[in-house]
Amino acid sequence: MNYDQYFLKSELLPAVVQEAGTGEVLMLAYVNRESLQKTFETGYTWFYSRSRQELWNKGATSGHLQKVLEIYADCDDDTFLFIVEQTGNACHTGAHSCFFKKLK
Amino acid sequence: MNYDQYFLKSELLPAVVQEAGTGEVLMLAYVNRESLQKTFETGYTWFYSRSRQELWNKGATSGHLQKVLEIYADCDDDTFLFIVEQTGNACHTGAHSCFFKKLK
Repeated sequence: MNYDQYFLKSELLPAVVQEAGTGEVLMLAYVNRESLQKTFETGYTWFYSRSRQELWNKGATSGHLQKVLEIYADCDDDTFLFIVEQTGNACHTGAHSCFFKKLK
Repeated sequence: MNYDQYFLKSELLPAVVQEAGTGEVLMLAYVNRESLQKTFETGYTWFYSRSRQELWNKGATSGHLQKVLEIYADCDDDTFLFIVEQTGNACHTGAHSCFFKKLK
């Protein structure tokens, strides 16, 4: 599969991860071509870690895997939305979603 | 309000926009300090347009404004989640959500 149309502006694009069923937005992480390809091939989320500069299979260490049910690109082809079944919690803090700090 | 804790890695951070009620993820756009401040002050979403390099009040032209009900930061303080009441459609194509291109 050719993903060139999606990586015109940047080699890394944001992917929003939303939980199927609850609709909760769990996290945002970044994908490159290779991690997107691995996500398709394996059916589980793979991202690119900007801090570690390596591919990252979400939950490979913690067991908190994300099974991918649907993938969408946005109108500009520069953001993805992954609809997933989350095993356990998405956040490394133990929170179910990474978005737990309420500003307003 | 001081937003310095949120802009350590970048002057621009992604903001996921989710519709209250439906839970639908509508779009992703970028904020800087000034657009975040304007979002707080006005109660409606303001972003920074990377292509036009200017602040952008979503819906100011189309009337498709987004009233902000809640704002969350993620665990790393480098992504925001805006929970909004969407007037009309979020996408400039006329789709309700920008994420209408299904890859899987």
